[in-house]
Amino acid sequence: MSRLSLDITATDGQARTGSLGTRRGQVRLPAFMPVGTQGTVKGLLPEEVSALGADMILGNTYHLMIRPGVDTVRALGGLHGFMDWPGPILTDSGGFQVFSLSGLRRLDEDGVSFRSHLDGDLLRLTPETAIEAQEGLGSDLMMMLDECPPPGSPREYLEQSLKRDARWARRALDARSEKGGALLGIVQGGVYSDLRSLSVELLGSLDLDGYALGGLSVGEPKEQMMEVIAQTVPQLPAHKPVYLMGVGEPADLVRCVGLGVDLFDCVLPTRMARTGTLLTARGRLNLKNSRFKDDPAPVEESCQCLTCRRYSRAYLRHLFNARELLAYRLNTIHNLHYILKLMAGLRKAIAENRYQSYAREILAGLEPTGQARAALT
Amino acid sequence: MSRLSLDITATDGQARTGSLGTRRGQVRLPAFMPVGTQGTVKGLLPEEVSALGADMILGNTYHLMIRPGVDTVRALGGLHGFMDWPGPILTDSGGFQVFSLSGLRRLDEDGVSFRSHLDGDLLRLTPETAIEAQEGLGSDLMMMLDECPPPGSPREYLEQSLKRDARWARRALDARSEKGGALLGIVQGGVYSDLRSLSVELLGSLDLDGYALGGLSVGEPKEQMMEVIAQTVPQLPAHKPVYLMGVGEPADLVRCVGLGVDLFDCVLPTRMARTGTLLTARGRLNLKNSRFKDDPAPVEESCQCLTCRRYSRAYLRHLFNARELLAYRLNTIHNLHYILKLMAGLRKAIAENRYQSYAREILAGLEPTGQARAALT
Repeated sequence: MSRLSLDITATDGQARTGSLGTRRGQVRLPAFMPVGTQGTVKGLLPEEVSALGADMILGNTYHLMIRPGVDTVRALGGLHGFMDWPGPILTDSGGFQVFSLSGLRRLDEDGVSFRSHLDGDLLRLTPETAIEAQEGLGSDLMMMLDECPPPGSPREYLEQSLKRDARWARRALDARSEKGGALLGIVQGGVYSDLRSLSVELLGSLDLDGYALGGLSVGEPKEQMMEVIAQTVPQLPAHKPVYLMGVGEPADLVRCVGLGVDLFDCVLPTRMARTGTLLTARGRLNLKNSRFKDDPAPVEESCQCLTCRRYSRAYLRHLFNARELLAYRLNTIHNLHYILKLMAGLRKAIAENRYQSYAREILAGLEPTGQARAALT
Repeated sequence: MSRLSLDITATDGQARTGSLGTRRGQVRLPAFMPVGTQGTVKGLLPEEVSALGADMILGNTYHLMIRPGVDTVRALGGLHGFMDWPGPILTDSGGFQVFSLSGLRRLDEDGVSFRSHLDGDLLRLTPETAIEAQEGLGSDLMMMLDECPPPGSPREYLEQSLKRDARWARRALDARSEKGGALLGIVQGGVYSDLRSLSVELLGSLDLDGYALGGLSVGEPKEQMMEVIAQTVPQLPAHKPVYLMGVGEPADLVRCVGLGVDLFDCVLPTRMARTGTLLTARGRLNLKNSRFKDDPAPVEESCQCLTCRRYSRAYLRHLFNARELLAYRLNTIHNLHYILKLMAGLRKAIAENRYQSYAREILAGLEPTGQARAALT
């Protein structure tokens, strides 16, 4: 039984487009997944997220484990039924939040013990329980539990860690039930190309349904991140999807698609929306800026999102300053529209074999200094 | 030029139904106006408020004066253009918030000086500037500035106050421009029936477009409030609308419609939604209650609102506990649906001459002790 089918319909350099077949429908690639941390993409209804162009969303296992609990979600129809999202859902393993949010962690060969950041409860996650939790949530694309080593960890530590990750990947595969969703492995190894290669090799011997690049965008210089991606992606099997975790800066999306990445997720567009920062083709617009006080123009003149079609910068600024709920909703609609339209543009450009010129154009708008062209060539 | 036309199509006892013609369309009576304090009904888009059954909304002049300022709203198409609500809008005079929210007030014959609760700016509101502000907002139904005497004010004080109110009503009428919206007077007098009559008499000599009952639901016993309404409404001209300010408790709406009130506004349904309290035909449901943790049932089995059609109590409880934006939105949809459907039911019952039995049924559900029947008869 194939849990995931990758259908690449066009390539342009390393960039590729097509679709990913999941048990809950197709995902157009390359794709950006809005993050629905706690069983909701903050402020929006599922059909709004879908209408904005998202085929798949991401759910956070750690958050849902802690509240309302996997058993509750399972009993209410899984995450799909619970939140009424019928399309595919990718879940993380819970590991990332264990390492970033929770207190008092203890890592051993078997798994990781940690305290809930909500109530201090002592909890444990192992490769097996991470799968069990994700299956309980009804995940279509599950992630293996991996360690997320602290940024700047020494090489020796990273090597031991990625070797354990490979053993955990094996255990995750063994733990998956027959009805379980697809399972993606996570390539680690920090910024060391030989460690990344070792991670690819170890995971490559397993029958995983796809690969994610982990441990990036955690503070390393951007060029280093790009280098690691450029070196690692070609080593991965071409018939399986490649997912870059936690990257959502528009320029990064454009560049990483050019390096062959298929899937992205990031809280950036939705979180920025909630802090009053709007994404545009010419960079960020900060609604708090007093020059928008009486500005009748939409956020972006050419934008066709609901927010831009109907509301002025002045109104959005007012709502944001007044901490009105509608502010977060309208800003989120705009930012997700921006990102998802960017992805649609990239798909079209690849299909028409003009990724390079499209990317140059987008990057020139975002980075008007001219660095754009240099970085691309 | 008639700024407001009342078309009563059926009466049933004191209760009446029909429609109120405004320059921006018809309002089915009796009507509940959702409150859009700061240029938005919290969390919802205008078309959602309208689809829930609201024909008219309320805007708060005090809040909008202070932020973003009347000039800003005027320049951006008035409140209608600013928030993209094409239907009628009633605005209050700003007086109520001056007396309830702002600091350091000084009241004199000419008006009231106060400090903004946001930044401490010294501001002034007079009968004339209250009209000017409301015209700047583009209000369709304006309220005269009145004093809102503290609950429990002595009779002598109330008498002086309502006499000044009548002088202010005259000044408000004089201040209205030719293009200004309808202007409603506010009947004061506390719980003293002779003072209420005096207020009606003084205001009745002016060419106001309708009347509001002010100074009620401010802590006096409920029976006293009902008595004042029952005594005052029949004294008002039958060809003008009667508006009861700030009342929105479901049982109160049912009873006050029976006393001949046409218009209501209240933050109750929207504010309760944001504190996790949902209105149902059998009283309030508190989402925080742990017995809803795994409850797959909708808030109300028979309810046809979006929230009840698609989401479980368990999901709503989870969203609320997680302080998710969608919680406030879904809860607001349910509560406004409940209230607006209640009003639609009342309109239909009056038209079909069965207000009494409909009201008894609703009140028996809300107050299952049996007090309901007693209070109605």
